[in-house]
Amino acid sequence: MEKRLEGRRVLVTQAGDYMGPATCEVFGEQGAEIVADASDLTRDGACEALIERAGRVDILVANLASPNFSGTPVTEMGDDDWAKTFDVMVHPLHRLTRAVLPQMIDRRRGKIIVYGSATALRGLKTVSAYSAARAAQVGYVQAVGVEVAPHNIQVNLIAQNYVENPVYYPPALREKESFQASLRRQVPLGRLATAREDAQFALFLAGEESDFFVGQAIPFSGGWVQR
Amino acid sequence: MEKRLEGRRVLVTQAGDYMGPATCEVFGEQGAEIVADASDLTRDGACEALIERAGRVDILVANLASPNFSGTPVTEMGDDDWAKTFDVMVHPLHRLTRAVLPQMIDRRRGKIIVYGSATALRGLKTVSAYSAARAAQVGYVQAVGVEVAPHNIQVNLIAQNYVENPVYYPPALREKESFQASLRRQVPLGRLATAREDAQFALFLAGEESDFFVGQAIPFSGGWVQR
Amino acid sequence: MEKRLEGRRVLVTQAGDYMGPATCEVFGEQGAEIVADASDLTRDGACEALIERAGRVDILVANLASPNFSGTPVTEMGDDDWAKTFDVMVHPLHRLTRAVLPQMIDRRRGKIIVYGSATALRGLKTVSAYSAARAAQVGYVQAVGVEVAPHNIQVNLIAQNYVENPVYYPPALREKESFQASLRRQVPLGRLATAREDAQFALFLAGEESDFFVGQAIPFSGGWVQR
Amino acid sequence: MEKRLEGRRVLVTQAGDYMGPATCEVFGEQGAEIVADASDLTRDGACEALIERAGRVDILVANLASPNFSGTPVTEMGDDDWAKTFDVMVHPLHRLTRAVLPQMIDRRRGKIIVYGSATALRGLKTVSAYSAARAAQVGYVQAVGVEVAPHNIQVNLIAQNYVENPVYYPPALREKESFQASLRRQVPLGRLATAREDAQFALFLAGEESDFFVGQAIPFSGGWVQR
Repeated sequence: MEKRLEGRRVLVTQAGDYMGPATCEVFGEQGAEIVADASDLTRDGACEALIERAGRVDILVANLASPNFSGTPVTEMGDDDWAKTFDVMVHPLHRLTRAVLPQMIDRRRGKIIVYGSATALRGLKTVSAYSAARAAQVGYVQAVGVEVAPHNIQVNLIAQNYVENPVYYPPALREKESFQASLRRQVPLGRLATAREDAQFALFLAGEESDFFVGQAIPFSGGWVQR
Repeated sequence: MEKRLEGRRVLVTQAGDYMGPATCEVFGEQGAEIVADASDLTRDGACEALIERAGRVDILVANLASPNFSGTPVTEMGDDDWAKTFDVMVHPLHRLTRAVLPQMIDRRRGKIIVYGSATALRGLKTVSAYSAARAAQVGYVQAVGVEVAPHNIQVNLIAQNYVENPVYYPPALREKESFQASLRRQVPLGRLATAREDAQFALFLAGEESDFFVGQAIPFSGGWVQR
Repeated sequence: MEKRLEGRRVLVTQAGDYMGPATCEVFGEQGAEIVADASDLTRDGACEALIERAGRVDILVANLASPNFSGTPVTEMGDDDWAKTFDVMVHPLHRLTRAVLPQMIDRRRGKIIVYGSATALRGLKTVSAYSAARAAQVGYVQAVGVEVAPHNIQVNLIAQNYVENPVYYPPALREKESFQASLRRQVPLGRLATAREDAQFALFLAGEESDFFVGQAIPFSGGWVQR
Repeated sequence: MEKRLEGRRVLVTQAGDYMGPATCEVFGEQGAEIVADASDLTRDGACEALIERAGRVDILVANLASPNFSGTPVTEMGDDDWAKTFDVMVHPLHRLTRAVLPQMIDRRRGKIIVYGSATALRGLKTVSAYSAARAAQVGYVQAVGVEVAPHNIQVNLIAQNYVENPVYYPPALREKESFQASLRRQVPLGRLATAREDAQFALFLAGEESDFFVGQAIPFSGGWVQR
């Protein structure tokens, strides 16, 4: 059997953070040529420059993550943290997409995969800014997804929660019995996903076999959200 | 029978635009004391000053609308229009909510009703910024809705589409036979809603009889979106 | 102000059970002429005979409830209980609808309101048959809702959970501290809805002001389900 | 690279119909040992006998399809066709699941994949029975999915529409220009999926890499339904 991403050029943003490392690992094993970017995409022109620098991009993995400020009541969510959440996760998504689409339209082929959050689909307390920004990603993916589908470009979002990563689930937290009990209560599957499992779903969305998925936000949360 | 909003103080934003006029009319008929604001809420401190000025607010009607730039392909959606969409519809929603919640929490009672859009729930082409911003409102309402529910405050959103208003559906458009045919094809009910119908749904969400609705985005679109 | 259902003829099924009593009370207060039926609708021809007997029906309230067998693992859900669940809640919904639609189509006006369940929208363990049957109601309402909307007939479903009723929440259960704690954990609003609150939502769906709701399953669950 | 279903025993129902042939082909290529059943599962005891006969079943592919009677108005949907729809698609799903779960629970591992329909998620006219039955499958999968997840068994459903198959889309229909135009209007991607594409999604759901999907109904419809 051949590797599943042989010959495909993949741009991964914030490659050192969040789902970046697992994506580079899994996609690399499958033969992808990876452009792993770790530049600050909030600066003026940064997204456009990155796409310019990257050259051909068959698959864009929009891995955009900021702190979720979990535990901050909505009455105390300040303007700076609010703005930063959108500056990191929402506005670069549009700028990257806008910059990469023309080459994909020309080739009549392309994939954009967004690592998003299930908090966009189900309300959770004390994550107001994060939930709003993650939901903006969902609305964007839905709208752009149907717009570019006739060009044979597929844009989809992984609406994840309860995936291992050292920022949202630091090792010290994960070892607590109270956290384990909470997991069993909140997540029907009763455990966190590994980052590799998550990247394997992204791999599925990156392949030709998933061309029929269009503008979707697909829950990946061990049953915490089902639709 | 008594009027349904007797003694309730209602703040309506952008009162001259979009759903503002119909809301003031319908809520006024039901005995509400209305603070109809038409100030520019994108300016620094404007939201906080408005809540300060308004005094007691039993019900906040967040009527925040910007152009939807329908017809603009995602590849041509510029940074200024993108930013404006969020500046008008998303950021003031947080600042108004944050400012008004403390008094509602103190009284253990309050309602926040957001006039949103069904484009947050179903993808539509050439409205990328608008869909993203409207979806941000949905994510915000879901998260804040569950957070403040224990204080007996209900936050909900009307996910509307195909509601009469002179900006999105100018009279000249509405008279075209092609528009009428498109309506019958797209909207199962086959017509636009009147602004009054929409305001009557807001009236329902403003009353005590709807306390059990919590953090919801409820489609109001003649069947265009069902869930 | 006039009463909201003056001159409207309403058929309520299983009028003595579940949401029947509260519906008859609330709709009666608003001037409706109520046909309160308590016949067994699972018998051959029973639905058709009821519609025949009822004469003019402006509003059909399909209040169809069976035990939910909560606590029965899926591996032990027997054929008889499975079949009964569909016999009571699903098949009569179609037969009542099919029988009442022709007169509504003739008058170009009508409302069908289904008291359904939020378990159709969110998975819950040990209620497999009930969840499947309640979901069948949702699928039916969505499909029939868009089909009959052009006739100006609105079909909608209340996707409820955590509503007071003596069958699902017997008084002895409600008094337990463990039940109260579970409520606060599961239901963001932290309490059950009263049956009257639920009937008031049905009242909203029964009125002309809600004509723009088409084929929808609307969560009514204190935030347990939001969409 | 190794084959993805090496050593896994897969039971495919109605193996000659609908998605059966493509599933057997794709799963076979990946090394699965396939039990391709074509018996009539509506007969008493048929499901239990099949599971008995099949021996070890690692993966159950519930491929249950009946005519959709598209074009039949709800007022003309007769009792026999209504019952048949549930007899073929709904009741055997429970009986197969109930019979196969004990061995999966014993092994703490198993997958149940249901080929369902996106008509469960979005209303379509003149398919009332079909939509209701397909929605029952969704409700069942959601409930059973969260119930059996703690046993490390994953139950998921493909909510598909616009997938090639000779029953719903006969060749004569597919060749019509009016059908092609309708496809471009209804399906953002502008084409039908091949049966192989669909089976490849089932393959993804059959593999270990998708263990984090729990009780979900995932749209597969070229963008016709997004959530």
